[in-house]
Amino acid sequence: MDSNRYCVIMAGGIGSRLWPLSRKGYPKQFHDILGCGRTLLQQTYDRYSRIVPKENIIVSTNIEYSELVREQLPEIGVEQILHESSFRGTAPSIAYVACHIRQLNKNANIVVAQSDQLILDENLFVDTIGKGLDFVAENNKLVIIGIKPTCPETRYGYIQIDNDISVTDKSSIYKVRTFTEKPAYEFAQIFMKSGEFYWNSGIYIWNVQTVIDTLAKMLPDMMNDLERVFAELPNRDERRRRVYEIYTSFPNVSMDLAVMERADNVFVQVGEFGWADIGTWDSLYSTLPKDADGNLNMRSHAIIYNSHDNVISLPEGKLAVIQDVEGLLIVDSGNVLMVCRKGNEGDIRKFLNDARMKMGEEYI
Amino acid sequence: MDSNRYCVIMAGGIGSRLWPLSRKGYPKQFHDILGCGRTLLQQTYDRYSRIVPKENIIVSTNIEYSELVREQLPEIGVEQILHESSFRGTAPSIAYVACHIRQLNKNANIVVAQSDQLILDENLFVDTIGKGLDFVAENNKLVIIGIKPTCPETRYGYIQIDNDISVTDKSSIYKVRTFTEKPAYEFAQIFMKSGEFYWNSGIYIWNVQTVIDTLAKMLPDMMNDLERVFAELPNRDERRRRVYEIYTSFPNVSMDLAVMERADNVFVQVGEFGWADIGTWDSLYSTLPKDADGNLNMRSHAIIYNSHDNVISLPEGKLAVIQDVEGLLIVDSGNVLMVCRKGNEGDIRKFLNDARMKMGEEYI
Repeated sequence: MDSNRYCVIMAGGIGSRLWPLSRKGYPKQFHDILGCGRTLLQQTYDRYSRIVPKENIIVSTNIEYSELVREQLPEIGVEQILHESSFRGTAPSIAYVACHIRQLNKNANIVVAQSDQLILDENLFVDTIGKGLDFVAENNKLVIIGIKPTCPETRYGYIQIDNDISVTDKSSIYKVRTFTEKPAYEFAQIFMKSGEFYWNSGIYIWNVQTVIDTLAKMLPDMMNDLERVFAELPNRDERRRRVYEIYTSFPNVSMDLAVMERADNVFVQVGEFGWADIGTWDSLYSTLPKDADGNLNMRSHAIIYNSHDNVISLPEGKLAVIQDVEGLLIVDSGNVLMVCRKGNEGDIRKFLNDARMKMGEEYI
Repeated sequence: MDSNRYCVIMAGGIGSRLWPLSRKGYPKQFHDILGCGRTLLQQTYDRYSRIVPKENIIVSTNIEYSELVREQLPEIGVEQILHESSFRGTAPSIAYVACHIRQLNKNANIVVAQSDQLILDENLFVDTIGKGLDFVAENNKLVIIGIKPTCPETRYGYIQIDNDISVTDKSSIYKVRTFTEKPAYEFAQIFMKSGEFYWNSGIYIWNVQTVIDTLAKMLPDMMNDLERVFAELPNRDERRRRVYEIYTSFPNVSMDLAVMERADNVFVQVGEFGWADIGTWDSLYSTLPKDADGNLNMRSHAIIYNSHDNVISLPEGKLAVIQDVEGLLIVDSGNVLMVCRKGNEGDIRKFLNDARMKMGEEYI
């Protein structure tokens, strides 16, 4: 396997949109949400192990979760886990891990993986990501995997491509024209019909120097600080400690907002391997198989009477008895039971914040 | 205190209509359902301790619950607990305990207490039951405490009195004319207006010989068996063992159906102390105080958004987040979560039976 290939698994999120199943102390990536016997993080690791040498897989996570990562991925070494000292956006995470990888290999080609995605055709996925890594080995471009829409989904970000400038017909890589965050349904319909719009998967591919150069342009203060640490501290542990200290001073911004939407060397590579984001209850509901009445039962024991279109998630061994309800999220997890209307994604964060304010940190 | 006074606390029920809070292994009478710091059984004991000498209080329960009774009432001796070997109706329980009490005191006057009732005016209650016990000391009658209806309640049994034959004006004791099980709402309205109908509280008062004589008439086989045990086995422990053995052969019938509705010496004593049965979710809902939106929160932590007329019962320390629901029972207890329509009392038994069939005994 090409030893210049690296993978960064982003596993530092709280997954607050899947609260109360996803908890600050035990976020969604550490759950076996799909019920396949492996957690989302483990599935992600398995998937990228087929593309990248195992010793080149780096997990970027918050210090709070490093023990969970080690438990769930006992096969990776401590040096393959990068800790963040505080919750920031994806841009600082990616900048830190890029500097770290450059230290290991100046010719690294990196795929940045999300740990909360469902991939249907793993072989096609492996093939697609491989082609992307080969492409950035030769091209100083920032590539995002764009997913061909299968429905006018309003929960995803869309990327419009420039049909005229296809970099290579073979692997379908197009220049990006615009980014559009979660659109209204009418727009999503138009986007889908047009054939020019792709879902933003959040999977990035680039070579290490290109991403560092672009970050230096877009977030110069942060990159100066990071570059100084890597230049001044040759000792790995000292570097880690220093980054750990300064991490809280980094801006809380996402890679898309801070870099991808502003850079002029951003391309979309089309992925047709069947993809879904499983970051929210609604995305789980639309992605996972339901019973004849439209109930999504997340492997809970359940006896259901005259009830439609609900999501039911209970701890193992617990029995749900459900009658005469429709369109509810019924989630029993740890010290929280949530019974609320399905389809109001924004409310989950409100619930979580209210639980924090009224009850304390142990409920979030 | 009159040493001829005895009290039998009936504490052998499963409380299946309050499932899944009330469980076969831990029925409602052992829960602090009203949130006053004492369980229903303890409250019942406290209440009758003011009427009957403590050493004359007998708890009649199933063998499965004798340890729970001893834990919750450490002040009573083992000889004050009578075990049943199987779940039968109230008639065999009452027959057994009557024979037991006659052995102790041939002049005993007995009040049979239910352990799942809410009494508002305890002083008036103590006064009323005391008068009833004095009455049966002088009269070979079977007395039921009848509650003056405060609303056209359809969940209770009604007893019609014979207004012409008031035994004594002072303590308002009337001969019974008819029993009517849970009536339709229209009938309940008529009953209430008529002034002749009272709620059947299930609290019975009689002297020991009268109840034994009446039982012998109504259930002769069972009483013959019991009388033989008490005649042939002077040793208390042997008697207990023998009754324990034959108990399963006794009929599964209630005292009301087998005796009270058929005997001609049955009287109603009017109770005006404020009473409610708390045997079902609906009775809890109508009895206990609710918030401004009509939600009954049984001391659970709860954050409630735009929700009306629900019952919420969770384990201690657990948080309920409830949004956009109306008229639901939301009960989280042990290994069962129930989310169902409020007001369909009969369904609870169906749920319980289905849970037993599909999941096993540990869920009921």
